[in-house]
Amino acid sequence: MPHIPLPPEHIGIRGAMAFRPETAKPLNEIVEILLAGPSTLTKGERELIATYVSSRNCTFFCASIHGAIAAAHLGGDEALVKQVKTDFTQADISPKLKALLVIAGKVQQDGKLVTTADVDAARKLGATDLEIHDTVLIAAAFCMYNRYVDGLATWAPTDPAKYRERAAKVAREGYLGIPVEVQAARTGA
Amino acid sequence: MPHIPLPPEHIGIRGAMAFRPETAKPLNEIVEILLAGPSTLTKGERELIATYVSSRNCTFFCASIHGAIAAAHLGGDEALVKQVKTDFTQADISPKLKALLVIAGKVQQDGKLVTTADVDAARKLGATDLEIHDTVLIAAAFCMYNRYVDGLATWAPTDPAKYRERAAKVAREGYLGIPVEVQAARTGA
Repeated sequence: MPHIPLPPEHIGIRGAMAFRPETAKPLNEIVEILLAGPSTLTKGERELIATYVSSRNCTFFCASIHGAIAAAHLGGDEALVKQVKTDFTQADISPKLKALLVIAGKVQQDGKLVTTADVDAARKLGATDLEIHDTVLIAAAFCMYNRYVDGLATWAPTDPAKYRERAAKVAREGYLGIPVEVQAARTGA
Repeated sequence: MPHIPLPPEHIGIRGAMAFRPETAKPLNEIVEILLAGPSTLTKGERELIATYVSSRNCTFFCASIHGAIAAAHLGGDEALVKQVKTDFTQADISPKLKALLVIAGKVQQDGKLVTTADVDAARKLGATDLEIHDTVLIAAAFCMYNRYVDGLATWAPTDPAKYRERAAKVAREGYLGIPVEVQAARTGA
């Protein structure tokens, strides 16, 4: 049960966003730009970074929904998403993406852990400065979304079908295609 | 030295924002709403939450600038800011703010650590649902900003005077009063 009264018809972060639409707007813009905007990284690759960070933060809702969106962009390959969560070094992804996931994993723990050698390794495998920047910011942003979802104890369904259904819509329409619902009544606010 | 070429004339997060103005816009909007927008928490209280989280993440730039902005809102009381960073339980702040800092400190580690008892304690001391929401989101957001600043190894001056100077401007004009500079040339992007 959420720590504050969130609209029960919305799952995960969407309940928190419906409660506070002012902050929902820029929060959605950040994922839209980073995960669905123009980039030399594919949408599947960027969603895998978000999924990996959410999985390491043990945030079930974010890891499930972004894992499902990643799979939607990757021809439905849920096994690949699972492999990235479990051990990305053995996954059938590019060496460049593996180097970026190393950076993302360090940012998830503490940004100060990222070394010049990590960045050089990614660059040698073809990563651009902008790709490195965006990897750091995606990882950092999901450390926010994950804590937002967990810190309010938002509700998340366990049925994978629920995530597949929403993922198809997000993969098709992006993050701004989902309107933020009218603000819920704020008791005590 | 930053991991990617950031404009050297900008310190801390501002260098990263100048590199990627698309994401700088919503990133600034979030702090503007949470720290400088309408709220039943004072600007000083909200900046103390941001400072405390940044201090726990050991992000020198964010802890220094938000500490300086907090002090600017608190009549220049830098000793109080230092006490909140060191041990807020002994600081001359309201019991309600102490209860909110307990929640913020848990979110900084892992949102799942926040308990019903933590939230009830804050509520009994007068915290509203919106204040609890915003405390969780401020703490979560600074886990992002801190990792963004650290993960790119942005540059931060050590002279406190630099932070006092900028803090006075932010305290006066808010976060949107600072224009995002033109995008730096992206080598290799």
